[in-house]
Amino acid sequence: MYVLLVYDIREKRVDKMRKLCRRYLNWIQNSVFEGEISEVKLKELLLKSESFLNLDEDSVILFKSRSQQWLEKQVLGQERSQLGEFL
Amino acid sequence: MYVLLVYDIREKRVDKMRKLCRRYLNWIQNSVFEGEISEVKLKELLLKSESFLNLDEDSVILFKSRSQQWLEKQVLGQERSQLGEFL
Repeated sequence: MYVLLVYDIREKRVDKMRKLCRRYLNWIQNSVFEGEISEVKLKELLLKSESFLNLDEDSVILFKSRSQQWLEKQVLGQERSQLGEFL
Repeated sequence: MYVLLVYDIREKRVDKMRKLCRRYLNWIQNSVFEGEISEVKLKELLLKSESFLNLDEDSVILFKSRSQQWLEKQVLGQERSQLGEFL
């Protein structure tokens, strides 16, 4: 399953969320991750994130697709993911 | 066509980009917009954004799908778009 994950999280929790997401998905921009992931692994990621997120303040949106082929990606400007390896 | 647009833009240009995107798409989170849009309107939006963005520093990523039905959306926490009307 292809997943696109975007989050809007209070600064004090951003580092933790970024680290967690990087273990499951690929970072592509600021607070945006994407990747192929199984239902089980996705559930694991969400459960772990819920353990430290404050869902009254934070927001995570997932877009799921059975296959990436339904989505065409277009990038304007910098491809942040190329820098991602060094973060 | 269904489009998901995420941007990572220097702060001084964020207001302009947010205003521009709101004229074409629906704000759903921080720097994330989505909506149904025609090819022509999307081209218009991108041309306008390129007139003030600095593509050496800024990044805009578009995910395009012929139909929103290929994407299942899941929200954890706050639905920012409900606040969007007041911004």
